[in-house]
Amino acid sequence: MADEDFIVTPWDVEGVVDYDKLIERFGTEPITPELLKRIQKHTGRLHFMLRRDLFFTHRDLNWLLDEYEKGNPFYLYTGRGPSEKTHIGHLVPWIFTKWLQDKFGAEFIFQMTDDEKFLFKEDLSMEETKELAYDNALDVIALGFDPKKTQIIIDTENAKTLYNIALPIAKKITFSTVKASFGFENSANIGQIFYTSIQAAPAILKSVQQGKNIPCLIPHGVDQDPHFRVCRDVLPKLGYYKPASIQNKFIPSLLGPAGKMSASNPNSTIYVTDTPKQVKNKINKHAFSGGQPDIETHRKLGGNPDIDVSFQWLKILFEPIDKKLDEIELAYRNGDLLTGELKAILIEKVTKFLIHHQKEREKAKDKLEDFIVRD
Amino acid sequence: MADEDFIVTPWDVEGVVDYDKLIERFGTEPITPELLKRIQKHTGRLHFMLRRDLFFTHRDLNWLLDEYEKGNPFYLYTGRGPSEKTHIGHLVPWIFTKWLQDKFGAEFIFQMTDDEKFLFKEDLSMEETKELAYDNALDVIALGFDPKKTQIIIDTENAKTLYNIALPIAKKITFSTVKASFGFENSANIGQIFYTSIQAAPAILKSVQQGKNIPCLIPHGVDQDPHFRVCRDVLPKLGYYKPASIQNKFIPSLLGPAGKMSASNPNSTIYVTDTPKQVKNKINKHAFSGGQPDIETHRKLGGNPDIDVSFQWLKILFEPIDKKLDEIELAYRNGDLLTGELKAILIEKVTKFLIHHQKEREKAKDKLEDFIVRD
Repeated sequence: MADEDFIVTPWDVEGVVDYDKLIERFGTEPITPELLKRIQKHTGRLHFMLRRDLFFTHRDLNWLLDEYEKGNPFYLYTGRGPSEKTHIGHLVPWIFTKWLQDKFGAEFIFQMTDDEKFLFKEDLSMEETKELAYDNALDVIALGFDPKKTQIIIDTENAKTLYNIALPIAKKITFSTVKASFGFENSANIGQIFYTSIQAAPAILKSVQQGKNIPCLIPHGVDQDPHFRVCRDVLPKLGYYKPASIQNKFIPSLLGPAGKMSASNPNSTIYVTDTPKQVKNKINKHAFSGGQPDIETHRKLGGNPDIDVSFQWLKILFEPIDKKLDEIELAYRNGDLLTGELKAILIEKVTKFLIHHQKEREKAKDKLEDFIVRD
Repeated sequence: MADEDFIVTPWDVEGVVDYDKLIERFGTEPITPELLKRIQKHTGRLHFMLRRDLFFTHRDLNWLLDEYEKGNPFYLYTGRGPSEKTHIGHLVPWIFTKWLQDKFGAEFIFQMTDDEKFLFKEDLSMEETKELAYDNALDVIALGFDPKKTQIIIDTENAKTLYNIALPIAKKITFSTVKASFGFENSANIGQIFYTSIQAAPAILKSVQQGKNIPCLIPHGVDQDPHFRVCRDVLPKLGYYKPASIQNKFIPSLLGPAGKMSASNPNSTIYVTDTPKQVKNKINKHAFSGGQPDIETHRKLGGNPDIDVSFQWLKILFEPIDKKLDEIELAYRNGDLLTGELKAILIEKVTKFLIHHQKEREKAKDKLEDFIVRD
């Protein structure tokens, strides 16, 4: 970070991210009010993650909508590197993707990059990353994606398909490019270096399989942009569309607003399999508060919802109703709502959400084979 | 070649190769008379390619024979990058491998690296390299390998198997290592960089599939040593044996003794599908001669079989009987045998060989499915 105040790569986030600067640095487009209106024409009322600027930047969304309006529908593609059990933060873009599937009737490919996590995590074995891929898949399925329109691709289970699609992509990407895009050193392993071509493959998978060019929209966390920036340079050279993308901000860790949640500290987030007791404990003990040090001061000065993780989680995922969120924000800001009371609201919401999710997650075990694709 | 008089990499041979220096540079072991005797104990009379020093260096052959003598048999692995139709030069190590299979009753994996050729040859498409892989496979089969003990693996057809085995290998190889081993620059494409892990995979394929460590012997052209040097460093870290190897010198181009044959000039070699007329024309017109400029001088000074390609081809492949070869050598050296006569001998041998090979090649079309393995 010598000359940069923050760093964002697919494997590393450091510092407090300035999203306006990130847009400039990555060369993406902000999501403007005009674009939101254009989306709304097709979806009706916008998803709160759009209304609240969580999805804040994009590439080629206008082109994608042009194609859609011409009768050329797109498919959705997102994914996950299965390095640990699913936590709340992972669900955010998936829930948004589910909304897109519902609104646009879109087919959807979900890529579980177990190969990536094996290559990038020194301590994980291939058995572990594959097991995590199958485990995490339950959380995708639990969200209610349409089994007729959704395929979950685990990389090592689809390596024949993916490697064959990745080869012509890889042929067009040099080490210089991945070095510049991902910050690799010469000490990077050769699997890591090759990997981005595997992540690019699903962006043209449907086009390859159907022998015609099909637009693709990738909802993803902004840290993944370097992968798709590289593949957008390459795919047109192979005769394919550049995939469009819509990108979300990071979900703050329970411990504070900077950076992503971390597997190294289980108290930094809530896992989808956590019990109500764990949820209560974690939020009460660890959720970073924007409140004042004592009740008197809080009543007088009020709390700061902008840095309060409980409020941010309500905003990002757990309180979809704007009016209710606004009331909470106001009450917290003017000191009527105490940190403990705000946490209690979040605890109730998260607990209710997880009880439902865990029920669906159990049912998903019987649905796995409807979603999982294998070579 | 700034500070080196010759260069040998899997993709590039420049200069006149000094094999003693190459042994030193690559760190392999020469095949000694003692080692030949040890092999002979198991095979009976040695193959002429061993007697004539064409297979001249090795790695860990003594260890391999130790294991064999302890009742721990090895399997054979070699391969080919299908960038063109098979020519005479390609057959040399395969014919030797067939002899090893016969003598040691060994299982055999033949890898067709169509992915490699696609990645390294700017002008070749994946369709072309795959088609060439299937075409070249006919020449392997035509040599008479035991279908019960032989598997031909085309990389793109076995990518699931190979990618899954390559991943843990790739995880242990850095860009620095491939840079040093293969001379890659930052302009190398990321498929090329990853590729060596795919070539390493068959060296442990049987061990992975059978869940126990099985010794592997790789007969190959000396230019491939960098691949196996890298994989020999890595495989023990994954709990596998280092593969042993036995390595042959380059087969001289028709045009002269330096370097390998080249696809860019069809007159530089004889393809296995060439007609008797083409064989005759190519050898008469293009085979580099060690003879004198005119008959009188030749009768007086004699020819030089050491640089005469027709003689070298007889020695390497087409005249297995030592006594006959010695007679030819003597007659050529003392001027009794003219270049045209020497060429006539080679033409006859090659023509006879190819008529037989082409017949077997036709039959091989019906045997393909006995040999080809697919994911």
